[in-house]
Amino acid sequence: MHIDAEPEVTTTELTERECWEYLAQHDFGRIAVNVRGTPSVFPVGYSVVPGGILVRTRPGSKLLAILLDSRIAFEVDERTDLDGWSVLVTGEAEEVDPGSNEWHTMPAAPFAGADAHVLLLLTPTQLTGRLLHRG
Amino acid sequence: MHIDAEPEVTTTELTERECWEYLAQHDFGRIAVNVRGTPSVFPVGYSVVPGGILVRTRPGSKLLAILLDSRIAFEVDERTDLDGWSVLVTGEAEEVDPGSNEWHTMPAAPFAGADAHVLLLLTPTQLTGRLLHRG
Repeated sequence: MHIDAEPEVTTTELTERECWEYLAQHDFGRIAVNVRGTPSVFPVGYSVVPGGILVRTRPGSKLLAILLDSRIAFEVDERTDLDGWSVLVTGEAEEVDPGSNEWHTMPAAPFAGADAHVLLLLTPTQLTGRLLHRG
Repeated sequence: MHIDAEPEVTTTELTERECWEYLAQHDFGRIAVNVRGTPSVFPVGYSVVPGGILVRTRPGSKLLAILLDSRIAFEVDERTDLDGWSVLVTGEAEEVDPGSNEWHTMPAAPFAGADAHVLLLLTPTQLTGRLLHRG
């Protein structure tokens, strides 16, 4: 099988500050966790808050996996015909009290429904991102 | 902090056949792997082929992680204002020979560039999906 030639792609690494800017401009990403050693991914609504990323989700097996192994990855991306970007957060997740006044920005959960009453705070240990342009 | 009431969300579990249909209609997803026990996620182009999902990527540390621990998760999703869906594949990944004639569908790699010459075959062990509707 022959792999077709693809157009030239320019890749630019984002600075940490630029990664935060991209994250702050969006509200929907994907969180990856280990469930008994096997990776799993699920889509979540989020907000950028001081100190990290606040994620809203439902109680369930994924949440239990996070409580057992708090290491997570969180990814946000977007593509158009000519451009694309992605930001990857690696870090720790912990459940936080929704009754706390510490955060004033509530993550959207447009498709999670009324039972998405669990809040997770993701604390990044590493933040990387790339901007891609076809040309 | 008060969690605002969200509109009712209807959730429908997709059958395995429906999951394959959604996967076949798209070409861009995210693969999650363990890198020394820590989850990581990266966006990839893909094609559905007989027996699994063919992913095109660059050589690098993520690929090395897959060769060391072949368990992966692969996720595709889409949202509009009123609807959303996501499909999650859990399974095994193996590098395959791009010179093989076994596959006639080549995954797109519009943003991966000329060095995206590595092919991975994902073989699902579990396939789940959800359709979400606000209303």
